[in-house]
Amino acid sequence: MFRFQVEAVDTHSRARLGAFQNARGRVETPVFMPVGTQASVKTLSAEDLETSGADIILANTYHLYLRPGHSLIRGMGGLHGFTSWNRLFLTDSGGFQVYSLAELNKITDDGVRFRSHLDGSSHEFTPELSMAIQTDLGSDVVMVFDQCTTWPCTPEESRVALDRTTRWAERSRRAFDERDAITGSDQALFGIVQGSVFPDQRRQSLEELMAIGFDGYAIGGLAVGEPKSAMWETIEALEPHLPADRPRYLMGVGTPEDLIEGVRRGIDMFDCVLPTRNARKGTVFTRDGRLVVKNAAYARDERPLDSDCNCPTCLRYSRGYLRHLFATGELLGPRLASLHSVYFYLALMTELRASLREGRFDSWSRNFLARYRNIEPSPSTP
Amino acid sequence: MFRFQVEAVDTHSRARLGAFQNARGRVETPVFMPVGTQASVKTLSAEDLETSGADIILANTYHLYLRPGHSLIRGMGGLHGFTSWNRLFLTDSGGFQVYSLAELNKITDDGVRFRSHLDGSSHEFTPELSMAIQTDLGSDVVMVFDQCTTWPCTPEESRVALDRTTRWAERSRRAFDERDAITGSDQALFGIVQGSVFPDQRRQSLEELMAIGFDGYAIGGLAVGEPKSAMWETIEALEPHLPADRPRYLMGVGTPEDLIEGVRRGIDMFDCVLPTRNARKGTVFTRDGRLVVKNAAYARDERPLDSDCNCPTCLRYSRGYLRHLFATGELLGPRLASLHSVYFYLALMTELRASLREGRFDSWSRNFLARYRNIEPSPSTP
Repeated sequence: MFRFQVEAVDTHSRARLGAFQNARGRVETPVFMPVGTQASVKTLSAEDLETSGADIILANTYHLYLRPGHSLIRGMGGLHGFTSWNRLFLTDSGGFQVYSLAELNKITDDGVRFRSHLDGSSHEFTPELSMAIQTDLGSDVVMVFDQCTTWPCTPEESRVALDRTTRWAERSRRAFDERDAITGSDQALFGIVQGSVFPDQRRQSLEELMAIGFDGYAIGGLAVGEPKSAMWETIEALEPHLPADRPRYLMGVGTPEDLIEGVRRGIDMFDCVLPTRNARKGTVFTRDGRLVVKNAAYARDERPLDSDCNCPTCLRYSRGYLRHLFATGELLGPRLASLHSVYFYLALMTELRASLREGRFDSWSRNFLARYRNIEPSPSTP
Repeated sequence: MFRFQVEAVDTHSRARLGAFQNARGRVETPVFMPVGTQASVKTLSAEDLETSGADIILANTYHLYLRPGHSLIRGMGGLHGFTSWNRLFLTDSGGFQVYSLAELNKITDDGVRFRSHLDGSSHEFTPELSMAIQTDLGSDVVMVFDQCTTWPCTPEESRVALDRTTRWAERSRRAFDERDAITGSDQALFGIVQGSVFPDQRRQSLEELMAIGFDGYAIGGLAVGEPKSAMWETIEALEPHLPADRPRYLMGVGTPEDLIEGVRRGIDMFDCVLPTRNARKGTVFTRDGRLVVKNAAYARDERPLDSDCNCPTCLRYSRGYLRHLFATGELLGPRLASLHSVYFYLALMTELRASLREGRFDSWSRNFLARYRNIEPSPSTP
């Protein structure tokens, strides 16, 4: 039921316009997926996300396995029934959080033993359990259980993770297919390419995954601390080998500039906590770059965060009021800022797709970046 | 410009149906005013308040004087321009917070010296300054600067506060009128009756205030720790002497039951932090009484908070999802719970007014309270 189609290819870059869909809905690509770690995009309601134009959001298997538990969510109608979010969900495999959040994780060929970051309780994730959890969660896009490398990492370390990722991808595929045959679900399964910043390893990982066969291919193990140039070079080397008829997902990226640079290099899907995490701390994204609205300089500023933005925050509230909300610790501040930044990210992608549709991605992206990279606008001039 | 009219009087009680209005809008009474201490009803946007049916909200002079400062708010178009809330605002005088929140307050006949609870800085509030601040805030209803008694308090202590409150009411009236003559504003000024639980003192305080003349009369110094029976007896003794053609405002009250009991005794206006403060901690108000939605018992409960409620929270989200949001510390939980409880309070008042309009307040209130006072509904039966 999961289908992906490329609708246009840019003539100046590797950028692609496309869409994937299942019985629940359609997602135009390139797409940015807001992150709802604990089945909630922090501070935002489902209505807020609909208003922002979100078509798909991400939820984290690791967090939901620990609280409230996947069987509880299955009993409440899966993630869609549980949260009332009726558009698409992508769930990660839990692998990344096991390495980055959990304590004392121990990796074997079977899986990963770890202690919960919440209460120290002992657990083990395997490819089979990750598939079982994601089946219960009922997400629309399921990710294979992989071993993510850290930065820096030696070629030898990377190869161990790569080989294990391939074996775990096979086991994920098998477990997923067995469940899928029983449940007859509409879920798609994506593979995750590892290999750190080593082009040969990346290519080998991809070929092994393609031999197994997936609905989409994610690039993992990037945006983990390496220089940005290394990230782009790795993607550029890998991209010609990615199958053209499958969506490509760059995990955990990024800034507005990163999204444009990623699209230019052939990426179709992105996710990142950046817009919501920054917003909660009082920094938002605008067409003129980042704006630290909690700064005292904005106390008397009657302008909206971004005068070219049509989000509910910009249509109604001033920087001065938002600055006051942050200065006094009012919870409305993080919500209005998050609503703006998520809306801004999604509006950016809508514009980006329009430029691809109309064959002007190159000029559009140049114009956007020229304005975005300007210095922060002066708060004194109205 | 401020006008108040009684439209119906209950035949079984002292309850009144009425409305007040100014150039900005009309407020039907009896009314409950959500509290926006720092110019924000905690977690809720102006849109949320409009959806909830709020016609007037309260803001605190003490907090706004300290942050962001009244002159800043004046420069941003007053409270309405600053917050984008276009319906009515009532501001308190700052007196109550000076006694309850500030450190080391020292009361003289001139005013109250106090140290900020934020940074220990030294300030003095006088009737004249309170009027100046509230003029700058541009609220629709201004409260005189009074001396509120604590509980318990001796007749002698109460008398000192009463006499001072009368003198400060005179000074407030004079300062307000002088500013009003200059600014030509649309603000109303309410007096505040003191006298603790001593009927003679309450009556004296009221008579002295009526001799000065105000647009409305508030009852202060109650709901400060005294037994509820003492509160109702004090109101019952005072009520026959309150002018029928002016709104009566019971400050800082209360629970849903208190609102009904207050209306029965002739009260037109209420404010309280209860619905929002409780909601942030995971307890909401429903037709079946309080519901502690953060409790584990609701983890798998697919029902809304209140199946007879049409608020955005109840139309879309389950108790189980809300319980998860509270259990995981997601900020969406306090917002959805606050939205429900504020909506619930305002819907309760709308129903109450309809019952007064249709001459069935007595039966309506009996029915409401019979159901409300039931034990908490079982979370196990769907």
